[in-house]
Amino acid sequence: MAKWVYFFGRQACDGNASLRNLLGGKGANLAEMATLGLPVPPGFTITTEVCNYYYDNNHSYPGALKSEVEAALTKIEAETGRKFTDADNPMLLSVRSGARASMPGMMDTVLNLGLNDASVVGLAAASGDARFAYDSYRRFIQMYGDVVLGVSHGLFEDVLEEVKLSNGLFQDTELTAEQLASLTESYKQIVINETGAPFPQDPVEQLWGAVGAVFASWMNNRAITYRRLNEIPAAWGTAVNVQAMVFGNMGADCATGVAFTRNPSTGENLFYGEFLVNAQGEDVVAGIRTPLPLTKAARLAGGAGEVSLEEEMPEVFAQLDAVREKLERHYGDMQDLEFTVEKHKLYMLQTRSGKRTAEAALRIAVEMADEGLITKSEAVGRINPESLDQLLHPTLDPDAQRVCLGRGLPASPGAASGTIALTADVAEARAGRGESVILVRVETSPEDIHGMHAAAGILTARGGMTSHAAVVARGMGRPCVSGAGEVRIDVASGKVFIGDTELKDGDMITIDGGVGEIYQGEIAKIQPRLSGAFEELMGWADSLRRMKVRTNAETPADARMAREFGAEGIGLCRTEHMFFDSDRIVTMREMIMASDSAGRQAALDRLLPMQRQDFIELFEIMSGLPVTIRLLDPPLHEFLPHSDTELEDVAKASGISIETARQRALRIKESNPMLGHRGCRLAVTYPEICAMQARAIFEAAVHVAKSSAAPIPEVMIPLAATAAEISICRKIIDEVAADVFATAGQDVSYMVGTMIELPRAAVCADQLAVEAEFFSFGTNDLTQTALGISRDDASNFMHAYQEAEIYEIDPFVSIDVDGVGQLVQMGADKGRAVRGDIKLGICGEHGGDPKSVVFCETVGLDYVSCSPFRVPIARLAAAQASLKTD
Amino acid sequence: MAKWVYFFGRQACDGNASLRNLLGGKGANLAEMATLGLPVPPGFTITTEVCNYYYDNNHSYPGALKSEVEAALTKIEAETGRKFTDADNPMLLSVRSGARASMPGMMDTVLNLGLNDASVVGLAAASGDARFAYDSYRRFIQMYGDVVLGVSHGLFEDVLEEVKLSNGLFQDTELTAEQLASLTESYKQIVINETGAPFPQDPVEQLWGAVGAVFASWMNNRAITYRRLNEIPAAWGTAVNVQAMVFGNMGADCATGVAFTRNPSTGENLFYGEFLVNAQGEDVVAGIRTPLPLTKAARLAGGAGEVSLEEEMPEVFAQLDAVREKLERHYGDMQDLEFTVEKHKLYMLQTRSGKRTAEAALRIAVEMADEGLITKSEAVGRINPESLDQLLHPTLDPDAQRVCLGRGLPASPGAASGTIALTADVAEARAGRGESVILVRVETSPEDIHGMHAAAGILTARGGMTSHAAVVARGMGRPCVSGAGEVRIDVASGKVFIGDTELKDGDMITIDGGVGEIYQGEIAKIQPRLSGAFEELMGWADSLRRMKVRTNAETPADARMAREFGAEGIGLCRTEHMFFDSDRIVTMREMIMASDSAGRQAALDRLLPMQRQDFIELFEIMSGLPVTIRLLDPPLHEFLPHSDTELEDVAKASGISIETARQRALRIKESNPMLGHRGCRLAVTYPEICAMQARAIFEAAVHVAKSSAAPIPEVMIPLAATAAEISICRKIIDEVAADVFATAGQDVSYMVGTMIELPRAAVCADQLAVEAEFFSFGTNDLTQTALGISRDDASNFMHAYQEAEIYEIDPFVSIDVDGVGQLVQMGADKGRAVRGDIKLGICGEHGGDPKSVVFCETVGLDYVSCSPFRVPIARLAAAQASLKTD
Repeated sequence: MAKWVYFFGRQACDGNASLRNLLGGKGANLAEMATLGLPVPPGFTITTEVCNYYYDNNHSYPGALKSEVEAALTKIEAETGRKFTDADNPMLLSVRSGARASMPGMMDTVLNLGLNDASVVGLAAASGDARFAYDSYRRFIQMYGDVVLGVSHGLFEDVLEEVKLSNGLFQDTELTAEQLASLTESYKQIVINETGAPFPQDPVEQLWGAVGAVFASWMNNRAITYRRLNEIPAAWGTAVNVQAMVFGNMGADCATGVAFTRNPSTGENLFYGEFLVNAQGEDVVAGIRTPLPLTKAARLAGGAGEVSLEEEMPEVFAQLDAVREKLERHYGDMQDLEFTVEKHKLYMLQTRSGKRTAEAALRIAVEMADEGLITKSEAVGRINPESLDQLLHPTLDPDAQRVCLGRGLPASPGAASGTIALTADVAEARAGRGESVILVRVETSPEDIHGMHAAAGILTARGGMTSHAAVVARGMGRPCVSGAGEVRIDVASGKVFIGDTELKDGDMITIDGGVGEIYQGEIAKIQPRLSGAFEELMGWADSLRRMKVRTNAETPADARMAREFGAEGIGLCRTEHMFFDSDRIVTMREMIMASDSAGRQAALDRLLPMQRQDFIELFEIMSGLPVTIRLLDPPLHEFLPHSDTELEDVAKASGISIETARQRALRIKESNPMLGHRGCRLAVTYPEICAMQARAIFEAAVHVAKSSAAPIPEVMIPLAATAAEISICRKIIDEVAADVFATAGQDVSYMVGTMIELPRAAVCADQLAVEAEFFSFGTNDLTQTALGISRDDASNFMHAYQEAEIYEIDPFVSIDVDGVGQLVQMGADKGRAVRGDIKLGICGEHGGDPKSVVFCETVGLDYVSCSPFRVPIARLAAAQASLKTD
Repeated sequence: MAKWVYFFGRQACDGNASLRNLLGGKGANLAEMATLGLPVPPGFTITTEVCNYYYDNNHSYPGALKSEVEAALTKIEAETGRKFTDADNPMLLSVRSGARASMPGMMDTVLNLGLNDASVVGLAAASGDARFAYDSYRRFIQMYGDVVLGVSHGLFEDVLEEVKLSNGLFQDTELTAEQLASLTESYKQIVINETGAPFPQDPVEQLWGAVGAVFASWMNNRAITYRRLNEIPAAWGTAVNVQAMVFGNMGADCATGVAFTRNPSTGENLFYGEFLVNAQGEDVVAGIRTPLPLTKAARLAGGAGEVSLEEEMPEVFAQLDAVREKLERHYGDMQDLEFTVEKHKLYMLQTRSGKRTAEAALRIAVEMADEGLITKSEAVGRINPESLDQLLHPTLDPDAQRVCLGRGLPASPGAASGTIALTADVAEARAGRGESVILVRVETSPEDIHGMHAAAGILTARGGMTSHAAVVARGMGRPCVSGAGEVRIDVASGKVFIGDTELKDGDMITIDGGVGEIYQGEIAKIQPRLSGAFEELMGWADSLRRMKVRTNAETPADARMAREFGAEGIGLCRTEHMFFDSDRIVTMREMIMASDSAGRQAALDRLLPMQRQDFIELFEIMSGLPVTIRLLDPPLHEFLPHSDTELEDVAKASGISIETARQRALRIKESNPMLGHRGCRLAVTYPEICAMQARAIFEAAVHVAKSSAAPIPEVMIPLAATAAEISICRKIIDEVAADVFATAGQDVSYMVGTMIELPRAAVCADQLAVEAEFFSFGTNDLTQTALGISRDDASNFMHAYQEAEIYEIDPFVSIDVDGVGQLVQMGADKGRAVRGDIKLGICGEHGGDPKSVVFCETVGLDYVSCSPFRVPIARLAAAQASLKTD
């Protein structure tokens, strides 16, 4: 029989950290901490299986759940010595959601559950603190009203503000017990007005209401969006954690806080966190009051004149520091902790693997490996390859002029420029049009996730380093400045004031999330220097990976950068990109619009020396390394003149009339250029183009080989579907090579191969491999043809497709393993069956996507190739892929 | 050790008919006839393997060939009692090419080989007929000069014409021995002038020259073109037949002729043929003199007042008639014979399966089966399904007004209208632009093949029923009128005179190849009535085939015609075709340009009754049969307004400004519409379109089911790549069906399935089959995506691709078995693995292509679907496919 409820407490623990899938992260770790003997208030977890039961059975619960919950409650009562339904000395509960992965989009927490008009009096009596009791009750009504009953929290806050104003008060803590008691009456009235029913007084009814709200929140829009963005399956479900309350708001000897065992921003091995005296947990996270630092060192470094936990409650701090040590050693990872101090006694409410910046992740992983806490392989496995992208993002050019408008907290590193957007929707809309935007908000909430995702950077007026904005921005790798108090926002008029400066919606600003500063206009940026930890970890990764990593590059600048990032050759040099320069495009157009072979040849003769020079530069940079050069690929019509002026230029250069030029251009135009006269079809119909390119390649190779290590040209025939196409092109290439080598009196070894980018090529790869010495899977085009989706036209339906979960991930971002992946596997298998030593690689965008890199490892490709900035990501992903498939 | 030379004669025969691949058709049948004891002059065949050796070894021969030829020559000499190199009584030879399949594009024949200045004297003496000797010599010099030495035959003919003119002669036969002797001198001078060398006098040198010319002709352009058109592999090679000469030109007791064992035009079981007295074989075929009929009956039926072989040489005729009987019974097929009568003695020079019209093929097959010569299965196997196309072609409307310009021979049945084209190149060029052309020539030759193929019909001024023009036109199924003596052609001025009428290049004429008449202008045509033989054979075919045959149709007219042609349901009803009517297109445009769901729904509500009525009509015609209805498939932009007027109409109907309409139209436009927002992507993004179509289908089905047998709607989801797409559409369809059936109080059984037209759908067919009850392979789009070729854009390179033999056959005409076929096989296998009873069909153009139908049988599809006119072809092809895979 299924067990639906897992108890945890001092006496016994049903669960532990390994039951994460069943208990959610929060529940599993509470059980683990209790087992470790840490001070955890007793409680129980309702499993994720109940969530699935709930959705599979029309929002109902398993029959046995009720009695299991009752039994667990009895155990809590036994440990705490109080009764849940006892009006005189009530045991209060917290109810919190807790999925397998952290889900900020869900209902988080209801605290102080169990209070009602009777027990609040009992609590006041039992604690001897009426103020505390009514503060707890008004918090409970607001939280429960908001998250369980669906009453807008703004309504409660308005009344609270009103009461403070009419009493001339500034802080919530200044309210008296009477004022708070009166507030609870107003709050209950709000509930009646909004819901048509009185606030529930029965603790058991309250409990089941909160449990149902947690399960319901699993399917709210924010949670669905968050899951989509983070690729979390709906089937995982959430657990519900019910736990005896402890109180950080019982007076000045109470506190609540959050902590990271190391600095989540830099990774430095220093205890790091914030707390508030006389507060409950949500006060810290919500950013309503600005919290205080944990340690004295942090206080001094922050320059703030206030106090730290270390100084304020030294014994509690010492306990907490011991917990930090114990948990980090136990979990072997940096932890994110929640704690509450009730009358000088420490309680641990949560531990989990802490979110961190990419920089911090690197440093933590490397240092933990150096400290012997984890192995080097574990360190390599710890880093999300995608996160390296952040480290490679530009920072502000120190020499650039700048006008600093104001300061906030350095919440997420990196610099970004963009136009001010005041709502998430506006940010998303403008970003969708290709605009770079900075989302500027008083504070952010889970409703803003889509706007944060779309924005280049985030700026908030309120909230600390662990505020929603800061945590989410770091997770997404978006630069963020939070808690910038000088920022005032008037959404209605679209105005933003930063200090004395008046800006408006749409104005350009720059933020630097590394230092927490805001600047006017756009500021020049420079490439980041990479830390020693980066180099060290990448070295470990390189020693672990099987696949080589090459780059897609055709300019010397890109090729050089890629080598600096560790590229081991070029996997895709798109020669057509070399023809778009203004000094070449006219000649290129002459070539494609020539009416005969002689006209084409004349233009090609002029293109040859330019193309040769291109290759000389690339070969020098890639001296001794393989360079895969793809022959001219795109439909000729991409080169067609766009304007009348351009048409005139070509007509003049070709010595034909404008009308003739126009006619020829029209003839080249295609209905579906993606499926048109392109790729090796150009070489078959115009062999002189192929011959010119081969000549440029081999003449350049011979030239470079005379002075340095010879490159290894891999001449790649694009868009082949048949062995015959490769054979025809190959003959031209081999003949040119022989001719060039004979003239130069020097051979350079080279290969001829093909892209596998058509489904026919994949299923007939055994035939193609007879002619091709290597395959490079061109998964961009293979995705387009296998799925029948033009990337250029997908925008009209791809959004709906992702909403409908037809493709889990955009198949142009991460390889569609079931479909395109199957074709790749088939191509690789069939290729190897015919030519055992065939070299296999991938050169689509997928080559730099970590998920796809894992797939490439399972297929056993020899290398992946990606854009220069993605090279480190691919190196790390390849290492992790090796580890996974070991 | 390989045997290179196969002797045949009275004494011994190395070969027989089964060695066709090695000996070619001609050589194998000569050996077979000799074995049967028929009067065949002795000779030998140099095998096709020598041809391959020749091309594999730089145009050289196997070492043993020379001695084997010498040995075979010795045997011929022994049988004939004459010596090849004996100047006094020479044994002359014919040298003829002979491939596995008949190849009019190759060198055909050199006769009288062995003659030289000395032996011509000996021949004159030995035969006692100097005129015959010199006639043979001048023929030999011309033929050898033309086909072996490459001297234009026109040069010889000019001299011949000159001699006749200057002597006031009209017929070649009127030339005296002296005139012919003088002609040989002129001919030899022509050879010296043209080749720079004297005409070879050594018989052995002549023989090897001719053998080499046969092998060389295998790779001439005509032969290559012919092979491409007829899908004959170059690797088959040709054999060379060397045979003792017999002479039809030795005087009035000599003759030469060709015969068909049955009428090749109608199939009637009557001996049919032509001959010329005192002539050599090429005189009949070349059409220089108009030949005489074989039989008295034919002479009387033809209305010609001349003589027949039956009357002229009754004993020879009786022998020939016996040969006819024997050969037809032996081969079990209608034979095409060549014979020569030398001094009243009959010699058989060739037998082969006779080319025939489609009508004749049907009648012969059916009658031979009825006569017990062959089985019904053999009869079904005998008919080329493609040839049925001819029978289904229109003939002239008997009621149509017509102006008959002239008459010729009814060389190939069928009627055609087109513009006059005077050269093959012009015919091809104009046909390439979509124009219907009639190729009008004095006579045709193998150089004209491409023009004949391109033309809708062929008209020649000279040549009989067995002339090149007639034979080739029948083979191609082109209507042909040959030997129309009233036709005069002035290529230089582009004028054509038919009787008194002056026409010019580009004027429209009509020919009726069934009666041999030429008409002015274009004349209305009607559908053919199909003969009893057709019905009988199709009945046999139906009883033999496993696959069902459906039709692609969406109009009542097409659906009705298809049922008459035997369609067993509709395999593809393209619903979008129903929206292009002028009264519907505006509403359709309103729908696609609506800015929201409500606007779309309003337009759809108006489209619903129209669409329902469409389906009611189709369902009534297809009562009781399956009707596969494909949901809206094409990219919306196909429906966009083209002109400003159309844009105005839509704007007005939608109540939006023209500018807004233009903007929306622009947004819908796509870069690669083939890979764009189409197919089920429309249903996913605009579910209301899918719902409307489903409603129209089910309401129509319920309506029809009330009064007649219910149709079986098979709702087909286009362009699916994933199971999720099918599941989403299926849900809509099932819900609408349930609603319609509930309202009507009546259920109609239906299926929901999908097209497999994307490579991903094929490789993931196991996933799709979970949702789809049937698959219909849409091989048009599957070919486009698998090969990455847009049919609309292929013209820029497809010609070059076929020239280069990259695709053996246009993959849009006949399925690319290696690539697309593999995907179809995969889709079928994976579909059946998951759903054992899944219904499988094909609905691309390939469904009506016999080769592709054979492929479908091997995959085990349940049905093929094709255009109405192709239904009989598919029925026959399916039967043959069943026979082949038995």
